[in-house]
Amino acid sequence: MFRHSSELQFHAKPERPDALFAAKLQELVGGQFGEMTVMMQYLWQGWNCRVPGKYKDMIMDIGTEEIGHVEMLVTMMARLLEGAPSETQAEAAAANPALAAVLGGQNVQHAIVTGGAATPTNSQGVPWNAGYIVASGSLLTDFRSNVAAEAQSRLQTARVYGMTDDPGVKDMLQFNLARDTFHQQQWLLGIEQLIEDGLVDSGIEDSLSEEEKDFAARTFYSFHEGSTAGEGRWAQGATLVGEGEIAFEQGLPLADDVNQVPAPDPLLYSTYDGSLGTPEPGTAGGAYAQGGKNLLSKAKDALTPDE
Amino acid sequence: MFRHSSELQFHAKPERPDALFAAKLQELVGGQFGEMTVMMQYLWQGWNCRVPGKYKDMIMDIGTEEIGHVEMLVTMMARLLEGAPSETQAEAAAANPALAAVLGGQNVQHAIVTGGAATPTNSQGVPWNAGYIVASGSLLTDFRSNVAAEAQSRLQTARVYGMTDDPGVKDMLQFNLARDTFHQQQWLLGIEQLIEDGLVDSGIEDSLSEEEKDFAARTFYSFHEGSTAGEGRWAQGATLVGEGEIAFEQGLPLADDVNQVPAPDPLLYSTYDGSLGTPEPGTAGGAYAQGGKNLLSKAKDALTPDE
Amino acid sequence: MFRHSSELQFHAKPERPDALFAAKLQELVGGQFGEMTVMMQYLWQGWNCRVPGKYKDMIMDIGTEEIGHVEMLVTMMARLLEGAPSETQAEAAAANPALAAVLGGQNVQHAIVTGGAATPTNSQGVPWNAGYIVASGSLLTDFRSNVAAEAQSRLQTARVYGMTDDPGVKDMLQFNLARDTFHQQQWLLGIEQLIEDGLVDSGIEDSLSEEEKDFAARTFYSFHEGSTAGEGRWAQGATLVGEGEIAFEQGLPLADDVNQVPAPDPLLYSTYDGSLGTPEPGTAGGAYAQGGKNLLSKAKDALTPDE
Amino acid sequence: MFRHSSELQFHAKPERPDALFAAKLQELVGGQFGEMTVMMQYLWQGWNCRVPGKYKDMIMDIGTEEIGHVEMLVTMMARLLEGAPSETQAEAAAANPALAAVLGGQNVQHAIVTGGAATPTNSQGVPWNAGYIVASGSLLTDFRSNVAAEAQSRLQTARVYGMTDDPGVKDMLQFNLARDTFHQQQWLLGIEQLIEDGLVDSGIEDSLSEEEKDFAARTFYSFHEGSTAGEGRWAQGATLVGEGEIAFEQGLPLADDVNQVPAPDPLLYSTYDGSLGTPEPGTAGGAYAQGGKNLLSKAKDALTPDE
Amino acid sequence: MFRHSSELQFHAKPERPDALFAAKLQELVGGQFGEMTVMMQYLWQGWNCRVPGKYKDMIMDIGTEEIGHVEMLVTMMARLLEGAPSETQAEAAAANPALAAVLGGQNVQHAIVTGGAATPTNSQGVPWNAGYIVASGSLLTDFRSNVAAEAQSRLQTARVYGMTDDPGVKDMLQFNLARDTFHQQQWLLGIEQLIEDGLVDSGIEDSLSEEEKDFAARTFYSFHEGSTAGEGRWAQGATLVGEGEIAFEQGLPLADDVNQVPAPDPLLYSTYDGSLGTPEPGTAGGAYAQGGKNLLSKAKDALTPDE
Amino acid sequence: MFRHSSELQFHAKPERPDALFAAKLQELVGGQFGEMTVMMQYLWQGWNCRVPGKYKDMIMDIGTEEIGHVEMLVTMMARLLEGAPSETQAEAAAANPALAAVLGGQNVQHAIVTGGAATPTNSQGVPWNAGYIVASGSLLTDFRSNVAAEAQSRLQTARVYGMTDDPGVKDMLQFNLARDTFHQQQWLLGIEQLIEDGLVDSGIEDSLSEEEKDFAARTFYSFHEGSTAGEGRWAQGATLVGEGEIAFEQGLPLADDVNQVPAPDPLLYSTYDGSLGTPEPGTAGGAYAQGGKNLLSKAKDALTPDE
Repeated sequence: MFRHSSELQFHAKPERPDALFAAKLQELVGGQFGEMTVMMQYLWQGWNCRVPGKYKDMIMDIGTEEIGHVEMLVTMMARLLEGAPSETQAEAAAANPALAAVLGGQNVQHAIVTGGAATPTNSQGVPWNAGYIVASGSLLTDFRSNVAAEAQSRLQTARVYGMTDDPGVKDMLQFNLARDTFHQQQWLLGIEQLIEDGLVDSGIEDSLSEEEKDFAARTFYSFHEGSTAGEGRWAQGATLVGEGEIAFEQGLPLADDVNQVPAPDPLLYSTYDGSLGTPEPGTAGGAYAQGGKNLLSKAKDALTPDE
Repeated sequence: MFRHSSELQFHAKPERPDALFAAKLQELVGGQFGEMTVMMQYLWQGWNCRVPGKYKDMIMDIGTEEIGHVEMLVTMMARLLEGAPSETQAEAAAANPALAAVLGGQNVQHAIVTGGAATPTNSQGVPWNAGYIVASGSLLTDFRSNVAAEAQSRLQTARVYGMTDDPGVKDMLQFNLARDTFHQQQWLLGIEQLIEDGLVDSGIEDSLSEEEKDFAARTFYSFHEGSTAGEGRWAQGATLVGEGEIAFEQGLPLADDVNQVPAPDPLLYSTYDGSLGTPEPGTAGGAYAQGGKNLLSKAKDALTPDE
Repeated sequence: MFRHSSELQFHAKPERPDALFAAKLQELVGGQFGEMTVMMQYLWQGWNCRVPGKYKDMIMDIGTEEIGHVEMLVTMMARLLEGAPSETQAEAAAANPALAAVLGGQNVQHAIVTGGAATPTNSQGVPWNAGYIVASGSLLTDFRSNVAAEAQSRLQTARVYGMTDDPGVKDMLQFNLARDTFHQQQWLLGIEQLIEDGLVDSGIEDSLSEEEKDFAARTFYSFHEGSTAGEGRWAQGATLVGEGEIAFEQGLPLADDVNQVPAPDPLLYSTYDGSLGTPEPGTAGGAYAQGGKNLLSKAKDALTPDE
Repeated sequence: MFRHSSELQFHAKPERPDALFAAKLQELVGGQFGEMTVMMQYLWQGWNCRVPGKYKDMIMDIGTEEIGHVEMLVTMMARLLEGAPSETQAEAAAANPALAAVLGGQNVQHAIVTGGAATPTNSQGVPWNAGYIVASGSLLTDFRSNVAAEAQSRLQTARVYGMTDDPGVKDMLQFNLARDTFHQQQWLLGIEQLIEDGLVDSGIEDSLSEEEKDFAARTFYSFHEGSTAGEGRWAQGATLVGEGEIAFEQGLPLADDVNQVPAPDPLLYSTYDGSLGTPEPGTAGGAYAQGGKNLLSKAKDALTPDE
Repeated sequence: MFRHSSELQFHAKPERPDALFAAKLQELVGGQFGEMTVMMQYLWQGWNCRVPGKYKDMIMDIGTEEIGHVEMLVTMMARLLEGAPSETQAEAAAANPALAAVLGGQNVQHAIVTGGAATPTNSQGVPWNAGYIVASGSLLTDFRSNVAAEAQSRLQTARVYGMTDDPGVKDMLQFNLARDTFHQQQWLLGIEQLIEDGLVDSGIEDSLSEEEKDFAARTFYSFHEGSTAGEGRWAQGATLVGEGEIAFEQGLPLADDVNQVPAPDPLLYSTYDGSLGTPEPGTAGGAYAQGGKNLLSKAKDALTPDE
Repeated sequence: MFRHSSELQFHAKPERPDALFAAKLQELVGGQFGEMTVMMQYLWQGWNCRVPGKYKDMIMDIGTEEIGHVEMLVTMMARLLEGAPSETQAEAAAANPALAAVLGGQNVQHAIVTGGAATPTNSQGVPWNAGYIVASGSLLTDFRSNVAAEAQSRLQTARVYGMTDDPGVKDMLQFNLARDTFHQQQWLLGIEQLIEDGLVDSGIEDSLSEEEKDFAARTFYSFHEGSTAGEGRWAQGATLVGEGEIAFEQGLPLADDVNQVPAPDPLLYSTYDGSLGTPEPGTAGGAYAQGGKNLLSKAKDALTPDE
């Protein structure tokens, strides 16, 4: 359960309105790596965390903080949009060609849809969607996603920072930059903690490692004549998991399998010249129907003894 | 420029068709962390890489390999769908209730839309979209995203692996698991190489670090009574960048700023009771129009001397 | 700023797992009218509310409650998915055709993507997106949207209720049904309060009412021979705003304007037979370039006196 | 079945082209609350209406009118885009900086994609999608959605109205404003008619009302210290459905249920420390497989007698 | 303007309900090539058609017919869904394992969201969106899209036809198949008419043909060792437009240009090793700022004479 | 399997950066008919092609070429964005109002998200998605889609061509125009080859032609009083498939079927007045449950003999 207080976590007071900058700031609100993404990503990870105690508490703490970050940005946006021109285009532009330029760069949904406030979209007006987030149940892979999200979010904040000289906006962004630094650290330390607690073996996701093809886990394949990729650490030296050395090889087909797909079922009217044999409806469906038949006979067997 | 050969990188031969499993395998083709995602993500990162030589070559090599992985999976899918039932529902089910179950779990687009082949969608039929990928120009943040994508992709492959007992499918997935292991290593080693080459200072994105609010870069804020989050390494010990120790604190408002937004422009017809002052169209728009006016007078100044 | 506590607002304990029902319950989590929608809609409306005091507080209270409703549902989902089958399809189905049916109706992302937990999607796997929500700055129109969302949400809850006989699930849904009743009332009472406080004149959005074409605000047009639509209250009796009686008329063109669009700019290579005159690049662009020219000459005038 | 005539319902003749205004007008064409939304929403509601006679006829009449409103707006758009500049950017801007401003604010798809015509998208270029509409089968909830859609649509029309001073555009928008007023009335009167006809009990969706938790249907919960939400009518006075008074209470957990989710199936490789017991594949899947087994044994019983 | 009559264009009466088939039929309603697509595509093309008379009338006639086809399918869907099971899953399945199979294949939104009716989505539940359609202003390219859409639509109808044995459904689909045949013909004949009327030169879109690189308009490039693509008509014989013979060549780089991108602006914090020169903020922005400067000085010139 | 070389297929060197033009060029990269679409469309068609030899090889050759076209455009974009202004908005605009205009038309994601490079989106910022492509298994219908895609793509290229006067950009676009001409020819010749090889009968998709309603395959229906559509070739003369003449008729209901849908299941709480009979839960569900029952008894029969 959640509670709310009217105070913002950090102040969000621009010195003056700036509708053009507000249009850009949308990327940090509702973009792929905006605050809505980390808020929703951490809440979902926290709710679905299977490990009671410090891990679940930690994820929920940060998810809860991030709701407040969306709040800060949305508040900042409404203040940046104060008095943004909604007047008749022609009159305003006639009096002021520089204003015409401003009008051209403004996000018109800020006037038409929200009445002077942020929209839950990115800087291009694409609505935020849950396809941006991930909560996999594996804390290692989730934390890897989280480090990446914070790094990208911080990079974008730094780029946006250079696009304003409003001291109030910069002040808030300095806080956001710091939190993104802190959160990168935290998720990296979370991975260290997972290792220390014995919940994972290494920082590399390796479930079912006993099944994987060993040779392919330690070979760099190049598909590019004259590639210099072999000069990097990633193509030489010890592997990070398992044993042995990384090899650098030209990528060649590793098996004798040409990309030909089988003859189609005639009922699907796909184009076919008969060269792979003559499928008939009964035959084409047969392989599978056979599967169905097998299921049924197994089911009948299962019915006979008291299962 | 690209070239193609008919041979697959690794064989993709199921022992027998299995339309139900094909419906699940879609997640590894066109899902958020399917092969289409890593293919497109690496190609875009490679094309946009500003550093000639081993970095650009390496990213392009892997991007090129991933086109071939999409090819392998799509070929596998068409083979799994061979002879999938497209017959009349009622007849089939009348003869065979187990088949009815099969029919219920099949992806009908595999018959109706593609004629017995994979679709470029995830397991729920949602079309793949470019909002899944990232190519930021910063190799550090890109590599962070790539480690995360490979970890998640490998986890999902491991989960899917348990849903089939077809030796041919398992054989291919064992190759895929190994590549996902290798690629996790590689991107982590890529970060080590970036540090060794002096292109970044640490594994943490810290551009503009001189501007960030220091205190907020080393404090864990808790928003949860009784939170045990302070027990983790993330809330104590030395920070990973900069100096000092991480602190654990209750999250409190750090500034005196209530989430109130300003009076609206009357022309936007937002609900307002006048309690924040009486905005008038001229006044409300004033702050901004003033900005426009300033731009203009500066522009006029700029015109006078020969700029 | 927000805070969190570990306790749920209401219990979310199914008596037993049920993966098939979980697949359906997704509609109430991440569907167009699921809990994510009302949570995000109310938070955005609250953050953007221009009227300090009871309105803003009320909206924030309910938005905060709804975060907790998402939490309840997500927790319920993970419990419903406990032990959902992730085993090899063929083995399971061989032993048990009824299980095969279950497997067919299961949402495979619950296994592959989240590892036994809800996804932020609707029952068809479509990710939740911010295009579902609205926060317009006008409390009247927002409250209208909110009544509608709660009504639809409640209807869908009632329909889902009939699809389970698990007492624990039903218990939680009984709470949700009641909240949806309460919230419908509340938003309707919110409209009454807006009227009482003089912030709107009636329950009908009528900004700029002085400009609208009066006749069209009190006429029902029928486009259907033999339509009986005139029998309803909506086509007769007093209007709800303004004066006069509602009229029922056959829909006819109210103006002499045929849907012909003008000759295209030749540079756009649209198909055109010359019958609307001979546009030339200079001419076609002329009307608009004229607009541009006018802007410029007005700007020049503006530069001359000290504006 | 539908028929068409070349005349528009109302004239759509701008006095002069205006590509910048056209870019904004897209919001009223293909936005969340644009004419495409109400057109498709009413047609689907009408087609799916179960009640023959005045209700179905009325919904179909209005849906049919709305196809004509899309037609009016699309025609208006092509006329506003007449002669929009498609010339070389640099040449145009060199001759005319005001034109450069115009070019910056133009929607380039109007030239590149449609050749001087509207696109079926909103003002940000996001394609219209059917996730905006609702047709639930319940006329009460549909009419609630319709009132909301008309209110929002009217509000947005009023905001756009202030962005032009073209008398032809204003004339058409005055007609649209009036129809949105009329349609709000009509759907509200539709609810009155539903009550009068005894098809619903009140204006509140209350199916399954006998099952809901009574206490939660008449309590306002606050989650915010110092909230003044209790001052509004929504938190005091008689309830609108059922009996009793509305209560105002602090939101507290109403049940003893912490948001912990159960131990994961080991085959899903989710992170788990064993603290909730030791699940084994057989055990974890057991609860559900049991469900399957039960289904099967019941099915067997059903087979034995002649069901 | 449009009018409506209650009669369907063709009957849409299934002999009996079939919820499983209804789930599949969604692909023909709201899929990429469903009836909603052709309805919206033709209406937009018709509204935007610049050529008065037979072309515009023809497109509008067919667009109007297609609204009625959506109506037919939606009506069919509601009839197929009559009495679809909304009962408790467990009870139903206990009595009837075959029913469990049915329930697994049903589209749950048909019950939860629409109350027994079609949804405006495809067979996977993805909402229809306007990104499926095209209306380019060029009748040649539009007609090409229309032939393609009708061919694909007809193919999908043929595939769906094999999935039912309901005589009423088949009857309606036989009508739809025929219309798709007719409409393919019609758009092909439309292209013939465009040529006959002299509105295009050939069936190939060739605006600006005087500018294109001739050699590349008559060469097939192969990127595949051992490709047999040269055996087809597409790689030999006379070209269809212009003069000369088609050539078959191995694809080689046609220019000396390596895919290296330039040094980044330092303010964007992209990874860069300095090997492409040392950009400085002033310098990096210089090339473009220069462009801006040029614009301004040209503008000033434009102000001096009376432009 | 694929290989890559560093050289571009054709040079992509603008003479000077132009951030405004780059924003427009996005439509040709990631739009509905951009290079990503044809690349993905042809690769999927090639992978799924059932006919070994020249068809499959040809499609794969072109798909492989198109990967290189995306590469060319993405490289061009990064070069156009060199030195695009990322400086503080206010400073830049103060010195230079023409630059302000430039800033207004720039795509801010080019700075914030990619750090000076293309995005995988269209000109409006909408991410590319796989819903744009088609690969149906039928080469005839696929080739029809491909002709259409190339025509539309070429038209859009021609329109974009007029928006720049940069000789380097024009040079590359001249190559692209030519390839779009060539590819239109090629797919049309592909259809001729399919006919010549006897894989289809005509250029019209006519699977199941023996089932279609003949009369409807040769009749043009008009739904528009005074329509002149009958003057075109599409409404008169010989049909292209089958025998007979095309007829022109007024569209009338062809069957006696009113668009009324049946009484709803009471458990779905849809609005209903009882006028279509009194459905009860048991009865309403009966028709379908009956279907289930029938399945079961047929299944039992199937179990008894050894099927």
